[in-house]
Amino acid sequence: MAGKTKEMVESWSFLDTADSNFRPLVVIELAKGTKEETIEWFTKRIVDKKANGGAQLLIKPLVTENGVENIYLVGASHLRLLLGAEAVGLVKECSDNSMRTFTYSSRKTFKHYADDNHDFLTMAECQYIIKHELENLRARDEKMIPGYPQAKLYPGKSIVRRLLTSGILVQIFPLHDREELKKLSHRWYGQVKIGYQPLDDIRCYFGETIALYFGFLEYFTFALIPMAVIGIPYYVFAWEDYDKYVMFATFNLLWSTVILEVWKRMCAILTYRWGTLLMKRQFEEPRPGFHGVLGINPVTGREEPMYSSIKRQLRIYLVSLPFVCLCLYFSLYVMMIYFDLEQWALDYHKENESNFSSLMLYVPSIIYAVVIEIMNLIYRYAAEFLTSWENHRLESSYQNHLILKVLVFNFLNCFASLFYIAFVMFDMKLLRQSLATLLITSQILNQFAESLLPYWLQKRYNRRMRKRMCSTKTDMDLSLAEQVNMEKEMGTYLGTFDDYLELFLQFGYVSLFSCVYPLAAVFAVLNNITEIYSDALKMCRVYKRPFAEPTANIGVWQLAFETMSVISVVTNCILIGMSPEVDALFPDSKMDLVLTVALVEHLLLAIKFIMAFVIPDKPRDIQMKLAKLEFESLEALKQQQMQLAAESLKE
Amino acid sequence: MAGKTKEMVESWSFLDTADSNFRPLVVIELAKGTKEETIEWFTKRIVDKKANGGAQLLIKPLVTENGVENIYLVGASHLRLLLGAEAVGLVKECSDNSMRTFTYSSRKTFKHYADDNHDFLTMAECQYIIKHELENLRARDEKMIPGYPQAKLYPGKSIVRRLLTSGILVQIFPLHDREELKKLSHRWYGQVKIGYQPLDDIRCYFGETIALYFGFLEYFTFALIPMAVIGIPYYVFAWEDYDKYVMFATFNLLWSTVILEVWKRMCAILTYRWGTLLMKRQFEEPRPGFHGVLGINPVTGREEPMYSSIKRQLRIYLVSLPFVCLCLYFSLYVMMIYFDLEQWALDYHKENESNFSSLMLYVPSIIYAVVIEIMNLIYRYAAEFLTSWENHRLESSYQNHLILKVLVFNFLNCFASLFYIAFVMFDMKLLRQSLATLLITSQILNQFAESLLPYWLQKRYNRRMRKRMCSTKTDMDLSLAEQVNMEKEMGTYLGTFDDYLELFLQFGYVSLFSCVYPLAAVFAVLNNITEIYSDALKMCRVYKRPFAEPTANIGVWQLAFETMSVISVVTNCILIGMSPEVDALFPDSKMDLVLTVALVEHLLLAIKFIMAFVIPDKPRDIQMKLAKLEFESLEALKQQQMQLAAESLKE
Repeated sequence: MAGKTKEMVESWSFLDTADSNFRPLVVIELAKGTKEETIEWFTKRIVDKKANGGAQLLIKPLVTENGVENIYLVGASHLRLLLGAEAVGLVKECSDNSMRTFTYSSRKTFKHYADDNHDFLTMAECQYIIKHELENLRARDEKMIPGYPQAKLYPGKSIVRRLLTSGILVQIFPLHDREELKKLSHRWYGQVKIGYQPLDDIRCYFGETIALYFGFLEYFTFALIPMAVIGIPYYVFAWEDYDKYVMFATFNLLWSTVILEVWKRMCAILTYRWGTLLMKRQFEEPRPGFHGVLGINPVTGREEPMYSSIKRQLRIYLVSLPFVCLCLYFSLYVMMIYFDLEQWALDYHKENESNFSSLMLYVPSIIYAVVIEIMNLIYRYAAEFLTSWENHRLESSYQNHLILKVLVFNFLNCFASLFYIAFVMFDMKLLRQSLATLLITSQILNQFAESLLPYWLQKRYNRRMRKRMCSTKTDMDLSLAEQVNMEKEMGTYLGTFDDYLELFLQFGYVSLFSCVYPLAAVFAVLNNITEIYSDALKMCRVYKRPFAEPTANIGVWQLAFETMSVISVVTNCILIGMSPEVDALFPDSKMDLVLTVALVEHLLLAIKFIMAFVIPDKPRDIQMKLAKLEFESLEALKQQQMQLAAESLKE
Repeated sequence: MAGKTKEMVESWSFLDTADSNFRPLVVIELAKGTKEETIEWFTKRIVDKKANGGAQLLIKPLVTENGVENIYLVGASHLRLLLGAEAVGLVKECSDNSMRTFTYSSRKTFKHYADDNHDFLTMAECQYIIKHELENLRARDEKMIPGYPQAKLYPGKSIVRRLLTSGILVQIFPLHDREELKKLSHRWYGQVKIGYQPLDDIRCYFGETIALYFGFLEYFTFALIPMAVIGIPYYVFAWEDYDKYVMFATFNLLWSTVILEVWKRMCAILTYRWGTLLMKRQFEEPRPGFHGVLGINPVTGREEPMYSSIKRQLRIYLVSLPFVCLCLYFSLYVMMIYFDLEQWALDYHKENESNFSSLMLYVPSIIYAVVIEIMNLIYRYAAEFLTSWENHRLESSYQNHLILKVLVFNFLNCFASLFYIAFVMFDMKLLRQSLATLLITSQILNQFAESLLPYWLQKRYNRRMRKRMCSTKTDMDLSLAEQVNMEKEMGTYLGTFDDYLELFLQFGYVSLFSCVYPLAAVFAVLNNITEIYSDALKMCRVYKRPFAEPTANIGVWQLAFETMSVISVVTNCILIGMSPEVDALFPDSKMDLVLTVALVEHLLLAIKFIMAFVIPDKPRDIQMKLAKLEFESLEALKQQQMQLAAESLKE
């Protein structure tokens, strides 16, 4: 088998005029025991000319000490990558500092472009291009994958997706660049320094989605600092005055609106610089897991699986929705048990009055926090299963339904007990205590489960690997084969969902009850500073390199954060209205108190909406640049029409 | 002068190969005594070739019995119009029933297209194209308008706009098509029938903006019918039960959300059929009234007047805002006077108890309604003056600032007294009475001032005209010259602003206090039915034909209506909370009452937002059609890039 494959590789080498130039970018791992004819067909399709329906990329089997395993390295010639950059619609900076969609014919006008400058496209961009080209390798007249009659194909079906779903293709992942990674990690978390993260470098290495997450994390941390600074004296001097709390809460509510609006502007600045703000959305293919009877898609006119929208609606409303409601009910039930435990601990403390018993007071909260995390985890799997069973055609629709399910449950699970304490038990002391316990426990748990544990496991694995190889080499000296073998065993980073979710819940802890526990912002800031480092470590050391994903904004999370800030206006207004100091201001009539609180709440909400409306989403200079681009494209169109008109009228 | 112009016309006639085919579309009226050289230069520019910077249209002086007046008729060859249709980005239906942007090269694929079918473009479209071409006639190296050194020009300045602002050009307006108009008005309001308006015919004749207004008016009327039907028994049986009112109010609140969401879908269906949903927004030029020091626009790179944005902001916040506040204060002051009058009338009635005195009870409300209309009118002029003085660069920005100013004032002016009666005086009987009086008076006044009065004036004028012409001809037999002379004296329709404003205020009367006066919807329905007829009459008989304006939605009015429906949730909840029946349900604690009301209000608001989020803005089939178009354009692009790639890789 190995011999034949080697021969094949040689016969393709005519494509790779300078073989020494082959730079491995992406790794393809096929299942052990994949049939020879399948490999031959697949590699042939990858190297074949575009005109013959191939991807026109370069591919090489990875030769290790054990001979050829089913691992292949994919690369591409410089020219091919440039054409691919045009196909994916990459936006790059021009010599005149404006951002423009890259086209091969206008390549000379771009900054840093030179025919021999192979760094014009970053490695992450090259890998994204190769992924795009591989995913767009489509079946022509094949009815099935050669050698696997059960893996059906139809014209236009993505070959790689079918290979993945039928288990022939184990994984595709981009290679790390050890040297670049070392430089990046040094600049990112290697030094002890106070300063911004190297977002542009992160973007070059990991792509826009991940860089934008770190940008948001950093921005959010800075944005919390004023809240934290104002919150500290409340704790230090134990301020409990009515007017100070009102001031703090009002500041918080307006501040949270401002930071969310300003983030949109920051985001526009970042993504404009990275080119993704201008990038056109690609047409969305059905997601890999989507299945159904073959039919003709009325939009594309292509053959693809069809699944009735009514069936999906039925599944959503008759199965998923009741299930989610049941889970919510169960979560409330667990909460009631927690309150029983809490009561028991209090009684115990009253009876014994020892150091141990006062420590015991915290135990129910800690147990509850752990239980919440576990329930969130289990529910997460259930939600993923259900959403996948709903059989959404598009990845974006799948993601939205999943996020909605997870958000609602997490919100209730994390905050229901606090709402109960605040608005049913009216116990502000307990609220403060629970809030602190929940916030701190969940932060510690998260940091541990998310970064430190995987890091430790990874480290242990690496040590064992190296022992097996009987070498004392550092990471830098590893041969390509060793590097590939090490990286293919690393965990896969599953996207920014969990990271954003964590921030979202933290935002809830900080803003929902900010007037009761001003110290929450302090803990959030402290957590986020370590979070930046642990997330950075996770990205650089624990996981496989993820493919870069271009994105122009943080998507549905913007909406989620804004909704949270609206809810927090309501909760804070009620909390302040319930405080005894405010109560004392209206000695005669509780009615007046409630009416005043309601009035203030409506006013604050109105101010929020007006502020969101008045603050422009994009800074003025970005608006101008976008307007300029739009104007130019309209002018070009007009010019073209004028020429046509002149010609037609001449006839 | 006449002789020379005639000679000029003859010398241009080489352009118009079949002179008998000249169809006058647009009328240009120059000021009396306009210099000969100006006319010569202007008409030369209009007929000149595109390549020489002309508009390549046809123009003819209007010859009447009094010789040549300064009135010109503009037309264009069929080919020129088709090319113009491409330039303005017209979207037409293809043979396969899909909507596509018209291009001259793909003309054969369009439905009803034939080289000799001159009805392929509607007359309104032709007139819109000519307007667009005239407005885009730009100065080249002229420094001024020949003969008028004070009318400065600079390269790229629209000649027509400068002619208009310097008073040389009196007006440009499209000609009516007497025959079509007669057919249209017969189908529209000529028959006594129950049925839909001929929206497609209206669109063909008056363009999308006006057709969409009538579409909205009709839709809104139908949408109000359920409210009216449910409202009638409340009046007939004098229902005053708590639960019935709550039911009615809840229905109203949810209903108003539904109708606004469904309108978006209806609007998408209409504008898709008309092609404007797909039409690309044209680049917006500075509005005619904009002035400033000449500078280079950083977006277009063209020379144009520049005006500091800070100066504008200062004008807005230091002058306009205080002025608006002052007006609002004045309006409140007038309201207080009204309440004094009201009190006086009540006292008078108590003293005298006669039929006359009970009639007198209505007099203050009627006077107030009249005063409100007058104040609205005066404020409107002030707002227009101020907004124009703020010197906005774009027409859209000017319009938004004007609409905001007028809306806020009109809202307060119309509803302040009702809010005062409801939430300060707590007098539901007076509220009902005032609401009825205000609603009915303002409707009668509006219908009179808007349609019947101008119609009567127009009729009288026409009679006098005809007497002067000593003819007994009907409208159909008029010569072209007579028609032009008659139309140029007609009033100019100033856009749909006032019509939408009227509907907006009506929506306020119906929804803000719906649970107190369920009969409001009945009056609104009755008014709207006559409104359709009187507005139709106004469009067809009273005003000059307006230029067609493509539009894809009702713009800022959608937002205004939605805001009103949010406010009405709040007012209705408070009103119900204040009713004695609800009061009686909470005999022990007013606190519980207020809390319940607040809870219900928040729930209703949440349901509203969720409904607005869940109901898709476009029907599924329109979404599919749009997706198909997007897919096709992406495919075409990809094809193009594939070819390019194949060529590049071959080299």
